[in-house]
Amino acid sequence: MFRFNYHLPGTSPATLLRREDAGDDPPIITVLSYDQSRCKETQIAQTEELLPLLDDAMIHWINVQGLGDIEVLTEIGELFHIHPLALEDVLNFVQRPKIEPYDDLLFIVSSMLYFDSPEELASEQLSIFLGKNFVLTFQEERGEDFFERIRNRIRSGRGFIRKMKSDYLAYAILDAVIDNTFPILETIGDGLEELENALMDKPDRQNLKRLYDAKRLLLQVRREIWPHREIFGSLMRDDSGLVQHETQVFLRDCYDHTTQLIDMIESYRDLSAGLMDVYMSSVGMRTNEIMRVLTLVSTLFIPLTFLAGVYGMNFDPAASPWNMPELNLRFGYPLFWFACLIISASMLLFFRRKKWI
Amino acid sequence: MFRFNYHLPGTSPATLLRREDAGDDPPIITVLSYDQSRCKETQIAQTEELLPLLDDAMIHWINVQGLGDIEVLTEIGELFHIHPLALEDVLNFVQRPKIEPYDDLLFIVSSMLYFDSPEELASEQLSIFLGKNFVLTFQEERGEDFFERIRNRIRSGRGFIRKMKSDYLAYAILDAVIDNTFPILETIGDGLEELENALMDKPDRQNLKRLYDAKRLLLQVRREIWPHREIFGSLMRDDSGLVQHETQVFLRDCYDHTTQLIDMIESYRDLSAGLMDVYMSSVGMRTNEIMRVLTLVSTLFIPLTFLAGVYGMNFDPAASPWNMPELNLRFGYPLFWFACLIISASMLLFFRRKKWI
Amino acid sequence: MFRFNYHLPGTSPATLLRREDAGDDPPIITVLSYDQSRCKETQIAQTEELLPLLDDAMIHWINVQGLGDIEVLTEIGELFHIHPLALEDVLNFVQRPKIEPYDDLLFIVSSMLYFDSPEELASEQLSIFLGKNFVLTFQEERGEDFFERIRNRIRSGRGFIRKMKSDYLAYAILDAVIDNTFPILETIGDGLEELENALMDKPDRQNLKRLYDAKRLLLQVRREIWPHREIFGSLMRDDSGLVQHETQVFLRDCYDHTTQLIDMIESYRDLSAGLMDVYMSSVGMRTNEIMRVLTLVSTLFIPLTFLAGVYGMNFDPAASPWNMPELNLRFGYPLFWFACLIISASMLLFFRRKKWI
Amino acid sequence: MFRFNYHLPGTSPATLLRREDAGDDPPIITVLSYDQSRCKETQIAQTEELLPLLDDAMIHWINVQGLGDIEVLTEIGELFHIHPLALEDVLNFVQRPKIEPYDDLLFIVSSMLYFDSPEELASEQLSIFLGKNFVLTFQEERGEDFFERIRNRIRSGRGFIRKMKSDYLAYAILDAVIDNTFPILETIGDGLEELENALMDKPDRQNLKRLYDAKRLLLQVRREIWPHREIFGSLMRDDSGLVQHETQVFLRDCYDHTTQLIDMIESYRDLSAGLMDVYMSSVGMRTNEIMRVLTLVSTLFIPLTFLAGVYGMNFDPAASPWNMPELNLRFGYPLFWFACLIISASMLLFFRRKKWI
Amino acid sequence: MFRFNYHLPGTSPATLLRREDAGDDPPIITVLSYDQSRCKETQIAQTEELLPLLDDAMIHWINVQGLGDIEVLTEIGELFHIHPLALEDVLNFVQRPKIEPYDDLLFIVSSMLYFDSPEELASEQLSIFLGKNFVLTFQEERGEDFFERIRNRIRSGRGFIRKMKSDYLAYAILDAVIDNTFPILETIGDGLEELENALMDKPDRQNLKRLYDAKRLLLQVRREIWPHREIFGSLMRDDSGLVQHETQVFLRDCYDHTTQLIDMIESYRDLSAGLMDVYMSSVGMRTNEIMRVLTLVSTLFIPLTFLAGVYGMNFDPAASPWNMPELNLRFGYPLFWFACLIISASMLLFFRRKKWI
Repeated sequence: MFRFNYHLPGTSPATLLRREDAGDDPPIITVLSYDQSRCKETQIAQTEELLPLLDDAMIHWINVQGLGDIEVLTEIGELFHIHPLALEDVLNFVQRPKIEPYDDLLFIVSSMLYFDSPEELASEQLSIFLGKNFVLTFQEERGEDFFERIRNRIRSGRGFIRKMKSDYLAYAILDAVIDNTFPILETIGDGLEELENALMDKPDRQNLKRLYDAKRLLLQVRREIWPHREIFGSLMRDDSGLVQHETQVFLRDCYDHTTQLIDMIESYRDLSAGLMDVYMSSVGMRTNEIMRVLTLVSTLFIPLTFLAGVYGMNFDPAASPWNMPELNLRFGYPLFWFACLIISASMLLFFRRKKWI
Repeated sequence: MFRFNYHLPGTSPATLLRREDAGDDPPIITVLSYDQSRCKETQIAQTEELLPLLDDAMIHWINVQGLGDIEVLTEIGELFHIHPLALEDVLNFVQRPKIEPYDDLLFIVSSMLYFDSPEELASEQLSIFLGKNFVLTFQEERGEDFFERIRNRIRSGRGFIRKMKSDYLAYAILDAVIDNTFPILETIGDGLEELENALMDKPDRQNLKRLYDAKRLLLQVRREIWPHREIFGSLMRDDSGLVQHETQVFLRDCYDHTTQLIDMIESYRDLSAGLMDVYMSSVGMRTNEIMRVLTLVSTLFIPLTFLAGVYGMNFDPAASPWNMPELNLRFGYPLFWFACLIISASMLLFFRRKKWI
Repeated sequence: MFRFNYHLPGTSPATLLRREDAGDDPPIITVLSYDQSRCKETQIAQTEELLPLLDDAMIHWINVQGLGDIEVLTEIGELFHIHPLALEDVLNFVQRPKIEPYDDLLFIVSSMLYFDSPEELASEQLSIFLGKNFVLTFQEERGEDFFERIRNRIRSGRGFIRKMKSDYLAYAILDAVIDNTFPILETIGDGLEELENALMDKPDRQNLKRLYDAKRLLLQVRREIWPHREIFGSLMRDDSGLVQHETQVFLRDCYDHTTQLIDMIESYRDLSAGLMDVYMSSVGMRTNEIMRVLTLVSTLFIPLTFLAGVYGMNFDPAASPWNMPELNLRFGYPLFWFACLIISASMLLFFRRKKWI
Repeated sequence: MFRFNYHLPGTSPATLLRREDAGDDPPIITVLSYDQSRCKETQIAQTEELLPLLDDAMIHWINVQGLGDIEVLTEIGELFHIHPLALEDVLNFVQRPKIEPYDDLLFIVSSMLYFDSPEELASEQLSIFLGKNFVLTFQEERGEDFFERIRNRIRSGRGFIRKMKSDYLAYAILDAVIDNTFPILETIGDGLEELENALMDKPDRQNLKRLYDAKRLLLQVRREIWPHREIFGSLMRDDSGLVQHETQVFLRDCYDHTTQLIDMIESYRDLSAGLMDVYMSSVGMRTNEIMRVLTLVSTLFIPLTFLAGVYGMNFDPAASPWNMPELNLRFGYPLFWFACLIISASMLLFFRRKKWI
Repeated sequence: MFRFNYHLPGTSPATLLRREDAGDDPPIITVLSYDQSRCKETQIAQTEELLPLLDDAMIHWINVQGLGDIEVLTEIGELFHIHPLALEDVLNFVQRPKIEPYDDLLFIVSSMLYFDSPEELASEQLSIFLGKNFVLTFQEERGEDFFERIRNRIRSGRGFIRKMKSDYLAYAILDAVIDNTFPILETIGDGLEELENALMDKPDRQNLKRLYDAKRLLLQVRREIWPHREIFGSLMRDDSGLVQHETQVFLRDCYDHTTQLIDMIESYRDLSAGLMDVYMSSVGMRTNEIMRVLTLVSTLFIPLTFLAGVYGMNFDPAASPWNMPELNLRFGYPLFWFACLIISASMLLFFRRKKWI
């Protein structure tokens, strides 16, 4: 459920540790620069190409995908005066989402959740550095991300984004992360609603597995989303001068969405706890029903079987007049059936009075 | 359990998204204007008709029912200087109840709960904008609402309402929402009380379903009511100048009612958790009772059946004197019955000592 | 469990609503006036008689029992300048205990708990208005109350009460309410202690009912007592000038008692949760024991019964030498018994090794 | 579990109520006076003897054991200017541990826990009055107490105690109370650790009882210890001038110990909740195992028994060639056994595939 | 689970108590002195050798391993002006991790966790005294510790450590302690993940034991880690002047790691609670399945066995025409089999409708 990527205990802090599963592909670095009137996109191969692009009058979004090449990271870190501890956190992805102020930067760790398979959530760490006129983002994976719509908004100049500063860009990125969690919760919630009926009717092992998976997914989403509230809260009362007053109202909106997500997660957790109770009760109830049938049939026939057994005994009537004289009675056999009827009827009466049938 | 109406992740904030299930009917817009001496009601078809009605000396309640026509919403939004994010929240109805201050407005999201079917609560979002001399409300559904009694109070001039400002009107609307929750809780509570006896006596699947439904309803009511306490708290310590001092005591009353509702919800939740325990115990207990009967009958007759089986064997007494000499005894058969009696009696004694009968 | 007496949603606040079960009897109004040297008791029939009695130099305790006559209540309300919302709360008895400051009054809602039947707690709302030189109390029921001992203390002039102001009288009334909760908790606690042993030995339906009732009673007491802590806390830091410095130490004492009650309630709740676990475990354990006996007897005799069945078969030895030659063996029958012995012994050995016997 | 000693509701506060079980023996009053150079012990019979002993230059520890004589208590109370409410609390032993400042006194209620029997904790209330140069303690029981070692330290002059003021003496007494709780917790913890293995192997009624007792004991210790943290916290930030600066570090130490105790209690409570789960699971598991054996044996032999029953039927082969021709087959009997083998084998195969054997 | 090493209640505080299991070996004392340019390591045998080494211009790390010799501890304590209560806490190892400011020292109690056996965590107390230019550490055990990598960093002069003050050294030590907890949690987490599948498929006693062990380990780690957050928080807002501004950012990093650990522990605890539910449900489900087979086979064959028993009875057809005329029917035997078929088929139909097969 959790990925572990800790350095060896006792090693120096801020040691950059190459992640094992990072692959050898070089990172993809794209720079998207814009102001109210212009917008320029560049993909660069060497970090040296970066510096000439960083025109002070524009907002720059430097997006780094893939963390396999530590040297490149170190160069970027130096270029933007990033504290080594923060750079270490970019690589060390067991990070809990958080926000940390540095001298003229805000460092935000967020995480992008998506379904890897129907019962497995993958989370990819997203590290955001917000500076005066740039946003620097690091993603673990190369390739598609959640942010194509934001790029289109920048390219087209629609909406607020081109009119605002770098803080609004950071907000837009975080907002996309939060918004991406709604469909995930919807999927989990739909699954729980299906389970509601299924568990009542058919409390089998597969449904138990699905319920447990839903609980685990909720736990995971909760772990990732909960700290975001703190992040937005912290951004709203920011005193670093990086967050403009006009962005506050957007951040508050995002804060509300996070609160709403947390609220829904807690409700779903409550619901799934209730479903577990329903499951257990259903199993108990079914066992009870099965037992009732067994008991009914058994207790009805066991005395009769005994009686039939008795008259199947071979005590010799010839040897003694005491030995099974019933066998020679004129109405012996009909009397046997009559006895069976009486016994069954009284049993059934007993069951009815116990309300078992 | 929750409705989802989120926009695509990454789209620009404040994008107005037409809800899918909104229908094509145009919204019904009614304006109720009043001061201490006058009261006027108008239903308008076009937003342009609205402006001339908004006389500064009167209090105006503009009520919009039905959110299918985004254009109309946008026009109203512009007319009252509503922030696009707030307008978005009017349409995006997964909103958690909340209060948000804007420059010269208070934006309140509340929700109206009613029973859709005996086990399903529907919730309709109610968006309230409180301005200096107006209250603007948006309801999702066209048609009847909770507020006819308030309109009558305004029309008749009874009570405080005509003497007070727009803040009192907003209070009256929210108070009606809160008061509407009492009968809902009463229904749920009655259901739980019925279950108390039912679960003890007859812990069947249907009662389990009813208990689970009650738990889910409580969860839902709680989700909607809990944030209202924050809303009233925030209104009471309002510093926007929109809430008059005389309204404070009414808001405190409403705050108290909300606290009381929350208190009752928590008590009912506690109670329903206790009922689930009772249910499980009852099922276990009934299984136990059924088992006891089965065990009793089985263990009584199984040894006897074996004995009867023994004397039904066909070992040939003629072949050897060792072969079943009992069959030729003078009192063989009576002795068999005597043995049966002894065995049964000792079994019953054992059961009695175990306190199973 | 809760009584509901809400007005119709949307009606004007502060509407006085006659309670349905209030009866038609007029309220009993008694006035007890005292200062350090004098003490005078009057029962009045009309509210007009009240005013002449209210001598400023004395402390007055006006006690109203029975809330059936709304007109009388309104007159009293006007006489003492009671806010209509507070007066509404007097009638609307689903009130949670609370304290509310009004201009020159403190309004306290408390509740008197007593056993209606051994498993049902009744609660009667007690509304207290504390003014400069009077205490005005409203009780739902006519007749006996908890406060006769306080009246005797006033009449006799023993203790502090005649030397102190109206705040001490209000304290004395609330103290009596709190003190009355101790015997209730003692009764519940005694019931739980009895259950401790009963549940271990005999986990039947009746004990389950008693345990559930105890849990429900605790929930109810808790709901009523918990808010009292807030009431005493609020009285202790009172800034209305109504609470004298000398009364503080008594209020602190009462606050401590409330804390102690809450502490005991929580402990009992913890205990009863533990008892529910014990109950469930006991049921499971007993089912297990019953199963063990069933399994033992069944598995012992079922193979033997089969064996006896085999030798009861009628394969014709005459038709073939392969057909049941055992039946003609010299020691066939003894060998059968020997086989039975061997089978039983090995079964018993197996059970012993499984530690089932 | 709790002792109740409340006065009748409505009686005057500060009424001294003789406890029922107090016995008629007069209290034992001992005075231990010391300063850095001197140390004097006196046992007195009359309260009048007390006053001459109270030399201002020394620290006095007046210890009263046994609370049967209310008159003596009243005299002592007057001598030390004790508030009547505090004196009432000395007698009214359902007190929760607490600290209360009075004019020139600190009143502390603590409680001494000891094992009355292996599953029953007794608690004795210890009331401490800390004045400028005296500590006055009241114990419920005459005879041995926890404090002999403190007396020895005073007598011998070892350690800090003779060099410090009365506040250090009060600290030393409370420290002894806290330290006495460690062995109690150790005993409970040892019991839980024994249960860990026992519950896995043998989830019987006796172990359930032991587990429940452990939970109840933890609840009791928790109730008594928890408020001590508040006591030490309050002493550390004392502003009465009674607590010297040098004692602070000792109080902090004691505060730490209390925190540690609470921490351990909570851990043990967590552990015992886990053990209850283990217990229930173990019972369920054992029932499951027993059922498996029953099912195995029953389903193996029941079909065979039926088959044997079939060939024990007496349909007359002579009457019709259709009547049981198998009985006259040459290999009828061996075929029967072969059929039995086949049936058993396929059953066993089925069980093996279900992983039941 | 907890080690107890309390002194006898009532003994003087700050009494140094030799631990029972400490062994007689003398402590190993090593001194590592360094500044930016130099680094010197010494192992000393006598405490007297210590003083000359403590050059004011360097940072000194005095590491004491093994606490068997109280005299040595006392000498060291006097040398560094350590408060006797702090020195007592070094020996009294049930200490909860904590931080305590003394005059010119910070006293930190931490604990090193490691696996003693796969299901048992050992914890060794680490006491740290941070002074102006020294760090004094006490470890319980002689021999290897967690800190060799720190020593190597000092020796090699790599990283920040040689450039910083003693506070950084203390941070590095605590950081190593925290980092050592990650692999422990990883082990526990891996165990839980394995259990997820195992419990679904095979809910046996061994897996229950493993689950319980995991819960207990989490409880233990939590107890040790939780207070560290307070330690780092306290260090970050330190006002003793011992913690440099540059170290703050490292402490914040460590604080984050601790938060992350706590977060993971809580998630794992949640998960293991869910697994316990799964376990119980699985057991119930398996019992249910077994019961179903038993009931199926029993109810199928018991009526048939009865029928076979009937026609095995020996009522004498010769004695009366009423006695078992079926036995002489031409198609009696085939009819018997037909009846069996009908009965079985209707039973199976019933089971199918109940969805049991």
